[in-house]
Amino acid sequence: MNIVSLSGGVGGARFVRGLRAHLDVTDPGARITVVGNTGDDITLWGLRVCPDLDTLLYTLGGVGNDEDGWGRAGESYRVQAELAAYGVPPDWFGLGDLDVSTHIARSLWLGQGLSLSQVTARLAARWGLTAAGVTLLPMTDVPVETHVVLEEDGQERAVHFQEWWVRMRAEVRARRFVVAGLDRATAAPGVLESIRSADVILLPPSNPVVSIGVILGVPGVRDALRETAAPIVGVSPLIGGRPVRGRADACLTAIGIPSTATAVAGLYEDFLDAWLVDPSDADTTARGTVRVWDRPLLMRTVDEAATLAGAALDLARAHRP
Amino acid sequence: MNIVSLSGGVGGARFVRGLRAHLDVTDPGARITVVGNTGDDITLWGLRVCPDLDTLLYTLGGVGNDEDGWGRAGESYRVQAELAAYGVPPDWFGLGDLDVSTHIARSLWLGQGLSLSQVTARLAARWGLTAAGVTLLPMTDVPVETHVVLEEDGQERAVHFQEWWVRMRAEVRARRFVVAGLDRATAAPGVLESIRSADVILLPPSNPVVSIGVILGVPGVRDALRETAAPIVGVSPLIGGRPVRGRADACLTAIGIPSTATAVAGLYEDFLDAWLVDPSDADTTARGTVRVWDRPLLMRTVDEAATLAGAALDLARAHRP
Repeated sequence: MNIVSLSGGVGGARFVRGLRAHLDVTDPGARITVVGNTGDDITLWGLRVCPDLDTLLYTLGGVGNDEDGWGRAGESYRVQAELAAYGVPPDWFGLGDLDVSTHIARSLWLGQGLSLSQVTARLAARWGLTAAGVTLLPMTDVPVETHVVLEEDGQERAVHFQEWWVRMRAEVRARRFVVAGLDRATAAPGVLESIRSADVILLPPSNPVVSIGVILGVPGVRDALRETAAPIVGVSPLIGGRPVRGRADACLTAIGIPSTATAVAGLYEDFLDAWLVDPSDADTTARGTVRVWDRPLLMRTVDEAATLAGAALDLARAHRP
Repeated sequence: MNIVSLSGGVGGARFVRGLRAHLDVTDPGARITVVGNTGDDITLWGLRVCPDLDTLLYTLGGVGNDEDGWGRAGESYRVQAELAAYGVPPDWFGLGDLDVSTHIARSLWLGQGLSLSQVTARLAARWGLTAAGVTLLPMTDVPVETHVVLEEDGQERAVHFQEWWVRMRAEVRARRFVVAGLDRATAAPGVLESIRSADVILLPPSNPVVSIGVILGVPGVRDALRETAAPIVGVSPLIGGRPVRGRADACLTAIGIPSTATAVAGLYEDFLDAWLVDPSDADTTARGTVRVWDRPLLMRTVDEAATLAGAALDLARAHRP
C-alpha cells in the first residue's frame, strides 16, 4: 500500500509518526510518501533552513524535541550565543548546535548543485526514514517563501512568515499571505506521480492556510488531487473550533475563513472524500459526497497519533467501493 | 609609536601578544598593526576559514586554546560530530562549535559584500583588539590559497596547504608551493601604507616559507619593506636549527633552503636590518649590514614572549641612527 501525506511541521510530523507506528503493526510493508511544505523556508546566517522538513526529519527519525515539537532533543545553543555576541541576528529564531549542522550540510550540498529533493533524501537516509519506508519529498525544489502582509498605521508591510509566526507570535493581524515564487514553482520530482499512483491520501491536521494551503498552491498539485483515484481523507486541524497548537485560527482569519471544521473542509471540497473531526466538532457538515466522521483528534502520545491515523485509514477504506 | 608585524598563526600570535604585553608597560600608547597571512585560508563546509587570522584574533583576544595554540579555549565539537554523521568531510580539520560561529559570521558578511578586511575588523572589534590598539589586517582581500605540490609514484599532485599540513602532518615531502591567485592579488587597504609609515617593523618567528614568505609575495609588500625608513627586525623561527613547533624545516627543504638561522635570514636579506637568533644559533651570520643578536627565543609564557618582543624593539632602537 502506498500512502501519501501532505504535511506542515509539528502536527503533520506527529500524525505521520503515528501513521508509521500504526502501519508497523497492521501493514509493515506499506510505504509512506510525505510531501512537505517548504513555504516556511528561510535563509538565516547565510544557511538554508527548512523548518517543516526538519521537523519531519527529526520527529520521524526519533531525535526530535518532543516537548517543543520542533528542533533536536538534547540541543545546545553555543553557536547561536557566539553569533549573537558577533552581532549576527536573529535572536528570535532558535538555531541549536545540532540543528545548525543540518543547515550547514543542506547549504553545502545545495551550493554543490544538488536539488533540495536530493539534499532531503540524504538527510532522510541518515535519520532512518528511508529504511523505515518513508520517503520525504519537498513540495518543490524551487525556493519559495511565504510572506505575511501586515498593516501598520495604514501602511502595508510584508515580513517573512517566520518573523510573523515566531517573533510576533502571529499576534499582529495578518492581512494576507503571499508565497513568493509559488506561481513559477514546479512540483518536486515524485510529488505529482506519488499523488496520482497513491492508494490512500491523507491530509494531517496541519495548518490549512500556510502549510497544506501552500502545498496546494504548487502548480499541478491540486489538479493531481482532483484526478487521483485514491480516496482522500483529511484530519481537521481544529478541536472545538480552536487549533491544538500553532495559530491556524489567525491564518484562517486573514483569508476570511471562520475557524470551524466545516469551513476548513470547504477549503478542500474540490478533492476531499472524507473528513475526520473531533467529537467536539460533531456538528461539522461537508458538502456533496464528503463523509464526516468524528474521532478524538488529540495526539498527546505516539499511541494516540497511531489510533488517529488508523481511524483515517478506516475512513479511507470505508470510502472505497 | 607605530609597530607593524607580519604574522602567520601560532608563533606570530604569541609573539604579538608578548609585544602588546611589553608595550602595555613601556609604551601603552604604541599601536600595533598586524598583517596576517591568508594563504592558509580554506573553504570547509561551505564556510570561509582563515586559520592564521583566527589564531591571531583568539590569542590576542585572550580566548584562545593556549595548549594547542589555535582554536578557542573551552571548545566543543557537537557540530562537527553531526556533520561527520551526515557524511560531510573533513574529519582531519578540527572545527569547534565556538570557532565555527566565527566562520559562519565571516561567510555571511562576505556574502553580503563586505571585504575580508571589513569582516576582520568586525571580528577584531568583538575580541577587543581594536580597543587594545591592535589593528589586524589580512595581507589581501583577494582569496588566495597555498597549494602543495607532492610527488606520488612519479606523478605530481597538488593538495591544499591545510591538507598537507594538518592531515598529512607535513610528512609527505613537498616538491614546491604554489599560492593560487597571489600574483593577481593586491595588498589589503592599509597594508602598504602601514609598512611605509611604520616606526618599527617586526617579523615574528612565523614560518618563513608559507606564512611570511606568502605575505612577501603579495605584490607591493616586498618593495614597501625595501623602501620603508623603519628598521626591520626579524626573529628566527628556528632554535638550534629546528622549528619550535610547526614544520618550518619541511617547508624550507621544499624550497631548497637549509634549516639554519643563517639561511632564513638570507630569505629576507634585501630588506632586513637586524636578526634575532637563539643562543644555540649564535654562529649565525648575515650579509651586509644586518646586525645579529642572540637572545632566548622560546616563548612558553606571555612573559617570555614579552621579553623577546622587548629584545626585538631594543634591536630596532640600536639600529636607528
